[in-house]
Amino acid sequence: MSFADQLSQYVSQVETGINTLLSPGVERPARLHEAMRYAMQGGGKRLRPVLLLAAADLFNTKPQNALPAAIAVECVHTYSLVHDDLPCMDDDDLRRGRATTHKAFDEATALLTGDALLTQSFLILSVNYAEQPTVANKLCRELAMAASSRRLIGGQMEDLLAERKNNASVDELELIHLNKTAAMIEAALVMGGHIGGANAEDLALLRRAGRHLGLTFQIVDDILDATADTATLGKTAGKDAMVDKTTYIKLHGLDKAKSIAEKHTLQAITALASLPGDTEFLQNLVREMGTRSK
Amino acid sequence: MSFADQLSQYVSQVETGINTLLSPGVERPARLHEAMRYAMQGGGKRLRPVLLLAAADLFNTKPQNALPAAIAVECVHTYSLVHDDLPCMDDDDLRRGRATTHKAFDEATALLTGDALLTQSFLILSVNYAEQPTVANKLCRELAMAASSRRLIGGQMEDLLAERKNNASVDELELIHLNKTAAMIEAALVMGGHIGGANAEDLALLRRAGRHLGLTFQIVDDILDATADTATLGKTAGKDAMVDKTTYIKLHGLDKAKSIAEKHTLQAITALASLPGDTEFLQNLVREMGTRSK
Repeated sequence: MSFADQLSQYVSQVETGINTLLSPGVERPARLHEAMRYAMQGGGKRLRPVLLLAAADLFNTKPQNALPAAIAVECVHTYSLVHDDLPCMDDDDLRRGRATTHKAFDEATALLTGDALLTQSFLILSVNYAEQPTVANKLCRELAMAASSRRLIGGQMEDLLAERKNNASVDELELIHLNKTAAMIEAALVMGGHIGGANAEDLALLRRAGRHLGLTFQIVDDILDATADTATLGKTAGKDAMVDKTTYIKLHGLDKAKSIAEKHTLQAITALASLPGDTEFLQNLVREMGTRSK
Repeated sequence: MSFADQLSQYVSQVETGINTLLSPGVERPARLHEAMRYAMQGGGKRLRPVLLLAAADLFNTKPQNALPAAIAVECVHTYSLVHDDLPCMDDDDLRRGRATTHKAFDEATALLTGDALLTQSFLILSVNYAEQPTVANKLCRELAMAASSRRLIGGQMEDLLAERKNNASVDELELIHLNKTAAMIEAALVMGGHIGGANAEDLALLRRAGRHLGLTFQIVDDILDATADTATLGKTAGKDAMVDKTTYIKLHGLDKAKSIAEKHTLQAITALASLPGDTEFLQNLVREMGTRSK
């Protein structure tokens, strides 16, 4: 199967999983369940759930076994975007080419939608892996750690503090990216490994690949913010420069930022190449993320 | 041991547990970890964690085994208060006699603090019960369900919608209270039961007791909002009448509201009395919650 076909097959599984594992939009309170679906069904690359499914596939896992965890990861990612877009955070009106959740509904509904999606992720894990409680617990711990005050939320907080003082150093910026972006990408790959029964060595390789892919992904995000337009990105472009935010581009210039991203892409691919199974799809996905134009 | 001594022993365990199971305030990002401690260490009745510890004790559980779950429940309760106090929700400046988290820090920090506390609860469960994965999974599922879009967050959303339309019916109001308030109280008792290895019948009794205690608790909350002053409550009094919110008092008048609360107190006590072990402490606690003055 071609890379593009494989990718679209994974994405289609994810869309089905979202539709199945979220409460119906008509369920009471309908406004909340509609908003959860609105936030989750806005498209997007589905990078994290696809990484999870593909990582699990390296270990010949049954696809139906990995899907709930993939949706749980996407719930956490989506909740973080819904809250990040709120007026007291980035105050953004546009996400994936559509109104952000607080614009399409209202601020209180968006706050509760994020809360509900974060909760839903742990509900999905605990319900769908109840018959494999050891796996369930590893998945819950990995996801909670990645989303915690030391990683995802810690990275958001550091990002906010850096914006306020406006002069993050190279080390501080890498720390922000490692937590704000790489943590959930790492978690997706490692959770796929847990479902596949990966050993400690393979889990470490998955984590390393995720770490480097996460850094690439965030640097490319910053590059696109500086070089692409709003229509292409589906979210407001040029925001970093507008608020003089410290990014790899501000610290290193565009060319150096690109070469740092390439270095991380290569390191991610090297880690993947040492894993068992056919890692070609994952390697291609990493390359694609390093050269994406939106 | 007297009821008061037993209660203060449980509360003291909870305070120690909070101190141990949250990241140190100096850990990076310090502002976030400080805010998490600020929100969690503001005192309060500690009703939910005490219920969990006392329920586990009915089944002769080692106290150290129940404490992490008790703190996890308090993390979820506290996160819900931090988010509920935000300007886009109840916009409250005062909680437990102190500035609310967004007043003491700022709105973005309070948003992230709530997010981090919700996440922390699942991290605490998955790390501290890793050696009992079946128990861990039951705890995680119970807590996630109680906090979900169908219960706690669903209740918050319904409450918000009822406030906007200003004419909730008796049934709608009970549904709001069952989800917004009773869900977490039920979950605390049931999680205590899971830790103690309770059978299905005892779990159902714990759930029933929690349901009625939750309804009592919320009705008394509404009565106090109407009759007590801000200094006594440690939070802004008289808010319901000010916004003409639908409460048991508005629907039934003060005397009828009191008698409904008494009826639920009695039903909670009846359920508790059928449980094994010495339920005297829990029965007294329920009575205390029904007659509290703050």
